[in-house]
Amino acid sequence: MTNQEVRLDLQRRSRLGMVEVVWGEDKTVPQITECLQRLNSSGELAIVTRVDSLKARELEGAFDSLEFHSKARCLTVGSPAELKPELGEVALLSGGTSDFEVVAEAELILRWHGIQTKVLLDVGVAGLHRLLEQLEHLKKAKVIIACAGMEGSLPTVLSGLVPQPVIGVPVSIGYGVSSGGRTALESMLASCAPGLVVVNIDNGFGAAMAAIRMLKLNA
Amino acid sequence: MTNQEVRLDLQRRSRLGMVEVVWGEDKTVPQITECLQRLNSSGELAIVTRVDSLKARELEGAFDSLEFHSKARCLTVGSPAELKPELGEVALLSGGTSDFEVVAEAELILRWHGIQTKVLLDVGVAGLHRLLEQLEHLKKAKVIIACAGMEGSLPTVLSGLVPQPVIGVPVSIGYGVSSGGRTALESMLASCAPGLVVVNIDNGFGAAMAAIRMLKLNA
Amino acid sequence: MTNQEVRLDLQRRSRLGMVEVVWGEDKTVPQITECLQRLNSSGELAIVTRVDSLKARELEGAFDSLEFHSKARCLTVGSPAELKPELGEVALLSGGTSDFEVVAEAELILRWHGIQTKVLLDVGVAGLHRLLEQLEHLKKAKVIIACAGMEGSLPTVLSGLVPQPVIGVPVSIGYGVSSGGRTALESMLASCAPGLVVVNIDNGFGAAMAAIRMLKLNA
Amino acid sequence: MTNQEVRLDLQRRSRLGMVEVVWGEDKTVPQITECLQRLNSSGELAIVTRVDSLKARELEGAFDSLEFHSKARCLTVGSPAELKPELGEVALLSGGTSDFEVVAEAELILRWHGIQTKVLLDVGVAGLHRLLEQLEHLKKAKVIIACAGMEGSLPTVLSGLVPQPVIGVPVSIGYGVSSGGRTALESMLASCAPGLVVVNIDNGFGAAMAAIRMLKLNA
Amino acid sequence: MTNQEVRLDLQRRSRLGMVEVVWGEDKTVPQITECLQRLNSSGELAIVTRVDSLKARELEGAFDSLEFHSKARCLTVGSPAELKPELGEVALLSGGTSDFEVVAEAELILRWHGIQTKVLLDVGVAGLHRLLEQLEHLKKAKVIIACAGMEGSLPTVLSGLVPQPVIGVPVSIGYGVSSGGRTALESMLASCAPGLVVVNIDNGFGAAMAAIRMLKLNA
Amino acid sequence: MTNQEVRLDLQRRSRLGMVEVVWGEDKTVPQITECLQRLNSSGELAIVTRVDSLKARELEGAFDSLEFHSKARCLTVGSPAELKPELGEVALLSGGTSDFEVVAEAELILRWHGIQTKVLLDVGVAGLHRLLEQLEHLKKAKVIIACAGMEGSLPTVLSGLVPQPVIGVPVSIGYGVSSGGRTALESMLASCAPGLVVVNIDNGFGAAMAAIRMLKLNA
Amino acid sequence: MTNQEVRLDLQRRSRLGMVEVVWGEDKTVPQITECLQRLNSSGELAIVTRVDSLKARELEGAFDSLEFHSKARCLTVGSPAELKPELGEVALLSGGTSDFEVVAEAELILRWHGIQTKVLLDVGVAGLHRLLEQLEHLKKAKVIIACAGMEGSLPTVLSGLVPQPVIGVPVSIGYGVSSGGRTALESMLASCAPGLVVVNIDNGFGAAMAAIRMLKLNA
Amino acid sequence: MTNQEVRLDLQRRSRLGMVEVVWGEDKTVPQITECLQRLNSSGELAIVTRVDSLKARELEGAFDSLEFHSKARCLTVGSPAELKPELGEVALLSGGTSDFEVVAEAELILRWHGIQTKVLLDVGVAGLHRLLEQLEHLKKAKVIIACAGMEGSLPTVLSGLVPQPVIGVPVSIGYGVSSGGRTALESMLASCAPGLVVVNIDNGFGAAMAAIRMLKLNA
Repeated sequence: MTNQEVRLDLQRRSRLGMVEVVWGEDKTVPQITECLQRLNSSGELAIVTRVDSLKARELEGAFDSLEFHSKARCLTVGSPAELKPELGEVALLSGGTSDFEVVAEAELILRWHGIQTKVLLDVGVAGLHRLLEQLEHLKKAKVIIACAGMEGSLPTVLSGLVPQPVIGVPVSIGYGVSSGGRTALESMLASCAPGLVVVNIDNGFGAAMAAIRMLKLNA
Repeated sequence: MTNQEVRLDLQRRSRLGMVEVVWGEDKTVPQITECLQRLNSSGELAIVTRVDSLKARELEGAFDSLEFHSKARCLTVGSPAELKPELGEVALLSGGTSDFEVVAEAELILRWHGIQTKVLLDVGVAGLHRLLEQLEHLKKAKVIIACAGMEGSLPTVLSGLVPQPVIGVPVSIGYGVSSGGRTALESMLASCAPGLVVVNIDNGFGAAMAAIRMLKLNA
Repeated sequence: MTNQEVRLDLQRRSRLGMVEVVWGEDKTVPQITECLQRLNSSGELAIVTRVDSLKARELEGAFDSLEFHSKARCLTVGSPAELKPELGEVALLSGGTSDFEVVAEAELILRWHGIQTKVLLDVGVAGLHRLLEQLEHLKKAKVIIACAGMEGSLPTVLSGLVPQPVIGVPVSIGYGVSSGGRTALESMLASCAPGLVVVNIDNGFGAAMAAIRMLKLNA
Repeated sequence: MTNQEVRLDLQRRSRLGMVEVVWGEDKTVPQITECLQRLNSSGELAIVTRVDSLKARELEGAFDSLEFHSKARCLTVGSPAELKPELGEVALLSGGTSDFEVVAEAELILRWHGIQTKVLLDVGVAGLHRLLEQLEHLKKAKVIIACAGMEGSLPTVLSGLVPQPVIGVPVSIGYGVSSGGRTALESMLASCAPGLVVVNIDNGFGAAMAAIRMLKLNA
Repeated sequence: MTNQEVRLDLQRRSRLGMVEVVWGEDKTVPQITECLQRLNSSGELAIVTRVDSLKARELEGAFDSLEFHSKARCLTVGSPAELKPELGEVALLSGGTSDFEVVAEAELILRWHGIQTKVLLDVGVAGLHRLLEQLEHLKKAKVIIACAGMEGSLPTVLSGLVPQPVIGVPVSIGYGVSSGGRTALESMLASCAPGLVVVNIDNGFGAAMAAIRMLKLNA
Repeated sequence: MTNQEVRLDLQRRSRLGMVEVVWGEDKTVPQITECLQRLNSSGELAIVTRVDSLKARELEGAFDSLEFHSKARCLTVGSPAELKPELGEVALLSGGTSDFEVVAEAELILRWHGIQTKVLLDVGVAGLHRLLEQLEHLKKAKVIIACAGMEGSLPTVLSGLVPQPVIGVPVSIGYGVSSGGRTALESMLASCAPGLVVVNIDNGFGAAMAAIRMLKLNA
Repeated sequence: MTNQEVRLDLQRRSRLGMVEVVWGEDKTVPQITECLQRLNSSGELAIVTRVDSLKARELEGAFDSLEFHSKARCLTVGSPAELKPELGEVALLSGGTSDFEVVAEAELILRWHGIQTKVLLDVGVAGLHRLLEQLEHLKKAKVIIACAGMEGSLPTVLSGLVPQPVIGVPVSIGYGVSSGGRTALESMLASCAPGLVVVNIDNGFGAAMAAIRMLKLNA
Repeated sequence: MTNQEVRLDLQRRSRLGMVEVVWGEDKTVPQITECLQRLNSSGELAIVTRVDSLKARELEGAFDSLEFHSKARCLTVGSPAELKPELGEVALLSGGTSDFEVVAEAELILRWHGIQTKVLLDVGVAGLHRLLEQLEHLKKAKVIIACAGMEGSLPTVLSGLVPQPVIGVPVSIGYGVSSGGRTALESMLASCAPGLVVVNIDNGFGAAMAAIRMLKLNA
């Protein structure tokens, strides 16, 4: 298959003001390496999401400044953008400790675009006081990313309490009917709270990108 | 088809302490009439659920003491059981006004078994203060039936706040992903709150029957 | 059922800066009347969504300043908020003429909150030039609401072309696998474009509310 | 991610009279250790569910009185509550030997809250006499937890035979259409027997918690 | 469209020993008329299933010996085959009165092929004694057709009690999760009882045809 | 909503060599009228699919040369393209008489693009000889469109017998599991026959358009 | 858990004339051993289905006359019943070589009940001549078990060609939409062929048991 | 199981002009060996699809001229057909690098039938310019195979831009709602672009076979 041609979207930064982030889950190590080389050689910042520790180990040392962020399961080449506090802070909430990976992915993406973040874990609605106690802290955030598995009620309850944009991220934590995150997703879409928006299951990356689009309105 | 034989479960009251309630939705008027005649002639109390107003009008006057409860969409023949306050009260909550029909069905079934009820509508979680204001009133209830459509968060939030048995009833109010009540159902089953139990979508009757089983533990 | 108590969320405007919009689809005419009376008597602006022309006709003349917006299928009592051009404009796009009802609902909700709007119909991706020709016009919009039925590609293609927040609204236009809007919804959630956010099928109201949350960041 | 804050629901015992049980399946060993430390240091009884033997082995010896219950797949720290026979007995039934794990989880949770239990395995409806022979024994139970995989008929048949509360627990035992427990779940929800309540697939923990809520009515 | 050619399977009787039964639900009155004319003119017995009373009235008098069987919703032209008691009897059971239409369709098809039938309605498993009382009667039947809606347990319980072939027919009676008959179908397929076979939802015709295939083994 | 702009894809004929066919099902009569006016005034041939007889009657006489094709449920304005026999013939097969509407839609679209057609109804696989007898006739066709509802086996069997392109069109004829055409669709996609291609359920229009793309290879 | 009691259905042979066959997939080696011991000690023939080679190796030598049938993935203790040719032969067909395991399971169950079998593999409908060539051979069979994965057309085509009872067994061979066997199952249920009956996906055991019920009619 | 008989479709080349390609995924190494031996001994070209590297290694050296194509995951015995440039070229496009395996399978099948190919990777619609830049190159292709995972928009956008036959191949690349390829599949089926045809998820083989059927029209 000698006539194939590979293309990266190297104009994304100028067109959308966003870094081209490479989806790592279904790529082999050689495919990831090729992507990183091209991004690197065109002077682009490089982030690869959904990289497991096995692949990360194989890639170790392949590039200067290659870093593996194990909690977020991301690889980066280069340094994060300078912090832009004037764009405002994004609060990242999760219903349980197990949602951590998704929160960590969103946080890394935000920080590499220079966005300030605040993380609040374990504010699930089964013990509502934990969320209510944090309302004061949430006032400072410009945008809220709320991650939840199981029945996914957190973004609904939250959207009824605060006026900011809330981005719901369903998480594939659960069993039985909630296995795979489908119930959390549909619960967020069906929310009786006005103006909650939703991204795909486990899509911490997408939620961060959406928050960046919103914060730029502010710029 | 002359050799067919129809059977009602006339021993249900002695075996389970419950009235045989007839499912009216998929029955024709002649089929309902035949059921009522048999229950009536064996001295049983008779309730038919899911009867629309068209069928109700056709049956009008067919029996002494036949009554149509339009909000609950039920027919009754005979009088409700005497009130047994010693069994305790059941609180019936709903997230929105549109869930009313299901609440009304559950309430009628409870009252016809002599159970005291308290109804609280419009305590949906998108305006959480409405629910929190009612917590004091809920303390008196022995069992709570919580009806909700859309994303169905009400029973989850409630089960984190009170120690009594909570029976979640998903309601087929909604659109898009919540159309038909499936999302509310799965949200309740997937609940992160401990010990919430669930019945079928729109099953006000079943929730009432479950509450009766629980209250009898008290007897 | 004399002990029931109904509650509206009258503090929503002070808490969230949003009007309580009443969901009309599963409510009877008496239920809608009661809601409007309460909102009206507490001096609140009132909007009821998903009202068909039959219900609208029954409610005609029930209140001063009651108006039925047939394309948006909404009832309003009172006058829309004064236009706030400083918040910026929202562009509303749709893939086909049949998505009109959802666009119209979103537009009405925005205008009653004082938001300026621009509507572009029939920019579906099967004839891509129609969308590409409008890119210049879209630059002025602060937020874009993109409605699409069938395979729902419009918001994906759009999110790859512009840097603003894009809210995808799947529409229940289609047949076979796309009947009910499920395919359009999942296509938008699965989008390969970075930062696209989604609301429930046909949820023009929710998209408008989300846009309002975002524009307020700007205020 | 230095600004994160973790929260456990340490007031659950005072608020609901229930132990905070930690969901172990999607947690790493360090996450479980942190949860146990916090519960332990605040003097709370600690139970972790869904712990496989690999994780259990890693945690061995981490705490005094840490115990792994391999059949129930649970970890405990501390001693079970004193037996409270006055609250009554819970009967745990299962349709087949393969449902054992779910039964064992429910039983452990009950015993650690001081509830007396009785286990009856292999009373599936394909050999109905096995169930009918046990009816006399079931009379003593205050609440019945009925676990079943495959087509999940056991709770339906049982609810037609006894007057107590019956909690159906669908089990993910099966293949083809019953793979994952979905058929058993829907069969229980759709049950023609009056007043059967249901929890999520494999949710032995939730069934036990629901039983505890019911038995406390008795207290 | 003048070059089209319509074909009936007129050799079915010689090839399979079965009448070509015409599916009426999605056919117009002219299409049904054309089918009946062709079957009639080739001397074949004619049965049309799933004919509603409106279509039946339009067809009234179109053929000699045309008869509408309203309970079974079938049209017939010609006379049923002579009774063949030597092939044995088929018992038709149903869980509730509402399943009647499906039972009636199966019974008509059997009788028109000369098969002797016995109908037992209302032997649902929620009142198990009703079924157990009939076991003796069932001994005479060569094949049993068991129709059930809701959770569809009847064929499972039955197959554990009797040694004959049992054909389960799921019925689209139910609501919520059992709406449309899917739960009853999957419950029968997932049955823990050995050797239960199943046909499509509401397929009384197919169950009868399967019974005929089995009885011919006997011939 | 005065600033909206409607767009038709008037360049489709020059770009793709295809007529812009308007989807009529979810459009109102005024919307259809507007589309037809625009197509008409730009000298384009106009076809509207999925028009029921009620809408057709309202539109009667609105344009010169407007014609309603009731079997195909299509409206046309103008005359069909001249027949181009050199492009070859398309054979249209269906498994049953009830699939007629879909066949008729495909045939009309083909004829209006000047393609020669041959229709063979009732060649379902339950009476295989009917299909085998037609194999000789099929040799002349360049492309075969095979429509089938129920279990949708026809295109699979056909693709194993002939070397031409076969386009499977699942039809929403059926009940129970085949209701809505989903089973026929998935059966065709899962086909063990090599090289069968598929379009959406009931998509006669799309099958015709695909056939036209293929025949043009020949041009 | 000392008070548990395990029960096997040891009367199944007298009641139904069938061996109690143990479902091995979700059972541990100790659970299987206990079942075999009980069956063995009560003099029953023992078969365990769905045993993988790992479990089989662990059980090796645990009982006299224990045998592992690797193709059928079954364990047996004791000897098969004596052949009863007077009951007639069962033909087992499959669409592809990959369906072999399911065919082998059915065949083993039949032979251990003394039933004569004939196996025909690779008679899939994509090369129809392979099936048509075998029709003569099928005439001898009393009952036909037809296994198929992918689109599952084989039993449909077969039921249109032969008059015997045909039991369709969907097989979980496939990918994409046919992954898991769901498409094959629904295709068989939706079959346009009269009187085809179906069992659960991969249920070779159930198909054999159903065939035995039918053959006994002959006895 | 001594009486079984295996059958290959050795007449496929003469009947359909296509090679019998063996589905390797669910076959064991001995089953694959047997298939290859039979094809080989009858002088047929042999291709086995969906062979993982483990199986490939076991088969190494088993036949002369056996070759493993690791990217396409296919085994071949023999040499590819001579190139037939007169049949025209097939263009193979993919939305992302991860779809490579499916593209490679399609390309191998085409080349072994003598068809010329052109591969264009990474032309996903999120960076639309990458596709638009290639339009000129696509003009030479007779047929286009467009592979896409995630939301699967590529074939829709493409079909609106070019007049050739486009075969959409949904790819099982994705997560959350797009996991398994179902969303990409339904998006392609629901496409608003006229005349797009679709094959099963990951079915590179089927797409190639369909392209061959189309190109032969040209021959």
